[in-house]
Amino acid sequence: MVTISRKSHFNAAHRLYRKDWSDQKNENIFGKCSNPYFHGHNYELIVHVTGDVDPETGYVMDMKILKDLIKAEVEDKMDHKNLNEEVQEFQSKIPTAENIAIVIYDLLKPHMNPRHKLAVTLYETPRNYVSYSG
Amino acid sequence: MVTISRKSHFNAAHRLYRKDWSDQKNENIFGKCSNPYFHGHNYELIVHVTGDVDPETGYVMDMKILKDLIKAEVEDKMDHKNLNEEVQEFQSKIPTAENIAIVIYDLLKPHMNPRHKLAVTLYETPRNYVSYSG
Amino acid sequence: MVTISRKSHFNAAHRLYRKDWSDQKNENIFGKCSNPYFHGHNYELIVHVTGDVDPETGYVMDMKILKDLIKAEVEDKMDHKNLNEEVQEFQSKIPTAENIAIVIYDLLKPHMNPRHKLAVTLYETPRNYVSYSG
Amino acid sequence: MVTISRKSHFNAAHRLYRKDWSDQKNENIFGKCSNPYFHGHNYELIVHVTGDVDPETGYVMDMKILKDLIKAEVEDKMDHKNLNEEVQEFQSKIPTAENIAIVIYDLLKPHMNPRHKLAVTLYETPRNYVSYSG
Amino acid sequence: MVTISRKSHFNAAHRLYRKDWSDQKNENIFGKCSNPYFHGHNYELIVHVTGDVDPETGYVMDMKILKDLIKAEVEDKMDHKNLNEEVQEFQSKIPTAENIAIVIYDLLKPHMNPRHKLAVTLYETPRNYVSYSG
Amino acid sequence: MVTISRKSHFNAAHRLYRKDWSDQKNENIFGKCSNPYFHGHNYELIVHVTGDVDPETGYVMDMKILKDLIKAEVEDKMDHKNLNEEVQEFQSKIPTAENIAIVIYDLLKPHMNPRHKLAVTLYETPRNYVSYSG
Repeated sequence: MVTISRKSHFNAAHRLYRKDWSDQKNENIFGKCSNPYFHGHNYELIVHVTGDVDPETGYVMDMKILKDLIKAEVEDKMDHKNLNEEVQEFQSKIPTAENIAIVIYDLLKPHMNPRHKLAVTLYETPRNYVSYSG
Repeated sequence: MVTISRKSHFNAAHRLYRKDWSDQKNENIFGKCSNPYFHGHNYELIVHVTGDVDPETGYVMDMKILKDLIKAEVEDKMDHKNLNEEVQEFQSKIPTAENIAIVIYDLLKPHMNPRHKLAVTLYETPRNYVSYSG
Repeated sequence: MVTISRKSHFNAAHRLYRKDWSDQKNENIFGKCSNPYFHGHNYELIVHVTGDVDPETGYVMDMKILKDLIKAEVEDKMDHKNLNEEVQEFQSKIPTAENIAIVIYDLLKPHMNPRHKLAVTLYETPRNYVSYSG
Repeated sequence: MVTISRKSHFNAAHRLYRKDWSDQKNENIFGKCSNPYFHGHNYELIVHVTGDVDPETGYVMDMKILKDLIKAEVEDKMDHKNLNEEVQEFQSKIPTAENIAIVIYDLLKPHMNPRHKLAVTLYETPRNYVSYSG
Repeated sequence: MVTISRKSHFNAAHRLYRKDWSDQKNENIFGKCSNPYFHGHNYELIVHVTGDVDPETGYVMDMKILKDLIKAEVEDKMDHKNLNEEVQEFQSKIPTAENIAIVIYDLLKPHMNPRHKLAVTLYETPRNYVSYSG
Repeated sequence: MVTISRKSHFNAAHRLYRKDWSDQKNENIFGKCSNPYFHGHNYELIVHVTGDVDPETGYVMDMKILKDLIKAEVEDKMDHKNLNEEVQEFQSKIPTAENIAIVIYDLLKPHMNPRHKLAVTLYETPRNYVSYSG
């Protein structure tokens, strides 16, 4: 089994808050991240696919196909967007790095070969990142 | 003359648009960057100060003082903020990377030793950056 | 389960040697790293915490709390220090990257939620690093 | 158990193609990578060795020995080479990143302490990499 | 005056040699880089454009236009290519990093606003790079 | 004129203090950096050489020769050393990043082609660096 990993990039605005909490409680829990005017990040995404190497091609999976899949399913949906306002999945989920990683995993998983294992790593800043593998 | 350089970081939301242009013209000129719901970036800022080395301390300028100055004048003003909505300088200036760099220069310059030369480099994404030296 | 990772930084002096070995044996085993005048590194530390995502906050753990914990338990103890001379744990342990990672793990572990899994990655140079997960 | 990791570097030319396929089929499957005139990469290699920390030295394994082993077994064989034309292992295997990682693993494994676990990570570009652990 | 900088990427094969020198002389001067089977690199290119900020748009130049220009003039010509065999400019010029930077400058310059100053930085490896500004 | 740049690396211990100042004054001016037990850094050094491209070789200067020169004049002198205690130049000069850059420039300059312009960039940490060009 070999894991192939592909890095991609999108940038977006977000804020962390719950409608069912007061502004004060949102600020207590989420600090500056609850700013009602939003802030934003350059998200660096790494998608990992683990599987057997096809003896005919020497590939686990064609990186070009993986790149195009990430573009179609993730970048086109999130790049230059406001996650809270424009991405349906975050109507009901706070767009923390953890939840964004889970949403990305769930967007990609149905398109993967079922014999392949999927994992995602998401950098929210150069110093903060999260990983999720289902 | 030696140049000392200090990297710092802030993240913010912004959009590129002019109120005096139609939405269509804004989109033609600024593309995805004019998204009315905003998007955002991790801005990496490098501040460069050029001057003589003080023979007593071996410093052009104490990096700790420079770090604190960047925090007070730039990070506290822009970090986790919406540049268009919350930073006064961008009421009348489009927050392109070029203009953000000029604003940062203008915020720092009055606090610098007049014998020192100032320059700023601002990464908007890992692939796009700008430099300004007055 | 999601893993959140936080990078931090400290720099320190150290040397690798055993008091119970001759200088010659120390040099044979540890080479330049046994220099009696010490040398030093910029250590880049990544702390990984794995756990369930709290459905209320969307967090495994607040990154701000993790950042403050790393500062209190690791940076305040090791930053700008001589590990051999000033950090008690290395009175009886050689400060190799492996042992520094284990000491950091042991410093952080008692402060972690017992349901969370902890791991640490420590870069001694941009080309050498170690990982430990208990 | 601690994992130590050592980064190294080599650059090489390669192309992806199968002699038993037509030029057209090679291009359909491998795209630009099948260019008959070759193209090339700066390969960044990370070798990971997992084992117990020797209580006497504080090392899993001396990084200097690992560095020299990577030079002798991998760099001297692949650096500034044409993988297809000059590296015997790729006479019968397409030099995809996956296969290069497997070949590197197989070159290093016989030289490792059998109690140690080996893994390799190979960056073909800053955005594409693969991992293999036997 | 502000400088905007855009990073891009291509990978290619090359060798350093002169047809009018013996193999031995080529090897004496160019070492491993003269390998007749070629080797290759991931070239990281940074294009710098210096000019006034357009008061209407806040841009020196639209980064999207610069990105597309680099793709059309440089990437399409050099990416996944053998520089010696497939890029006309290197029929008569040795493809050293210095010469590749000069060729890239000469390819881009005619497309630039004549009031703008152009410079290019080219990384041949993470440790070796060159800069040229006409 | 083209500039070629070569990155290299050394790590060392140092402290910032003046023998002719009290410990208190040293701490007031240099803070944690005056720790009498020393601390240390991974110094990343970039050496820049500017000159004409030799039409015969396509080189400003052979990078291999520059690499060997940096090793002989800088790395062998400073790597794994205590700058204050073991490097003669810092008997009379405080080893700030500024002064280390000047010392490195002065070590390299006599070995350079007099028609070439030399500059050095020295990273003391990933966030602090200095540049000097004579």
